[in-house]
Amino acid sequence: MLRLYDFLLSGNCYKIRLLLTQVGIPFERVDVDITQGETRTPEFTSKNLNGRVPVLKTEAGEFLAESNAIMFYFSENTQFLPNDSWQRAQVLQWLFFEQYSHEPYLATPRFWISVLGKAEEYRDAIEQKHEAGYAALKVMETHLSDRSFFVDERYTIADIGLFAYTHVADKGGYDLSKFPAIKAWLELVQAQPQHISITQS
Amino acid sequence: MLRLYDFLLSGNCYKIRLLLTQVGIPFERVDVDITQGETRTPEFTSKNLNGRVPVLKTEAGEFLAESNAIMFYFSENTQFLPNDSWQRAQVLQWLFFEQYSHEPYLATPRFWISVLGKAEEYRDAIEQKHEAGYAALKVMETHLSDRSFFVDERYTIADIGLFAYTHVADKGGYDLSKFPAIKAWLELVQAQPQHISITQS
Repeated sequence: MLRLYDFLLSGNCYKIRLLLTQVGIPFERVDVDITQGETRTPEFTSKNLNGRVPVLKTEAGEFLAESNAIMFYFSENTQFLPNDSWQRAQVLQWLFFEQYSHEPYLATPRFWISVLGKAEEYRDAIEQKHEAGYAALKVMETHLSDRSFFVDERYTIADIGLFAYTHVADKGGYDLSKFPAIKAWLELVQAQPQHISITQS
Repeated sequence: MLRLYDFLLSGNCYKIRLLLTQVGIPFERVDVDITQGETRTPEFTSKNLNGRVPVLKTEAGEFLAESNAIMFYFSENTQFLPNDSWQRAQVLQWLFFEQYSHEPYLATPRFWISVLGKAEEYRDAIEQKHEAGYAALKVMETHLSDRSFFVDERYTIADIGLFAYTHVADKGGYDLSKFPAIKAWLELVQAQPQHISITQS
């Protein structure tokens, strides 16, 4: 069986749990506590040199890291990734947007505030992150203003990728009340068959 | 003809110029000066909401952003991207590594030091970036210690993606002398047919 090295609160890990559940691929979870440095041990970096979760271990014993690369692999030839090459490129565009312009600004304040419980200590850093994070949310809001999903008017891994940290943005101090298109899209994602919540394992 | 919205000093733009040249796809360049805010005009954000280069315009008038998504699209069914699904996932793993754990730490010091000429002003920020940047270089060095290329023992877009900012790391104050495997790999990449340098248009 597939094995997912996983941290329940991580949005990046949640992407894999959500996709595999919706695709219907069984997997077992191994808890790795990132707050205790468990991703930086020699034993863990033998699985992922970069010392981060999620990491997927195949039945053949091979490892794959990077949440969006793992999603791409398991969504090929499913309804969650278009077969058309141009549409697939659009999916990747949004997934790279997520990792470069979105996740670093949404995930980190949530980690500081809701995982570490250190909102005061990180006050200035949170403010800096929010500036870029709101810019990313504005990009999403504009894109979604005349469509239901990110690519091809259907639910794909681009939506899963962006949903992971957007739907818990409030836990990082973000106010989504000025983003009606994002809120409608969040509800649509949550209404998909076999949807699971972030702490559900 | 394809049109590339391009900034010559940008490593992300260089990836596209290098790949398209090696694949043999003709394209025209439109210079966009990121130092003058030219990616943040309404005219430009109508092409890429996220206000960044590179952006590719197809002959059909459609736009694609994110350097690694553009590379994926144009390398499909070429020697620069494996057909095997697992190998392709490995390529994506390294491209997401590049955008998340590498580029933010290698590109920005180079921009501050060599593009803006403000090494003194950004001294502390550069030091912070170097810590994570050297960690990324160490990951690359370890991975390359027993292989020639990043994936499948051949030159792919994973190599192009990581080459773009690694080969000019010294312009961001990095010392690569302790990374012999990276240096050997850089030379191997530069020795590929139809290689072009970063400022060559």
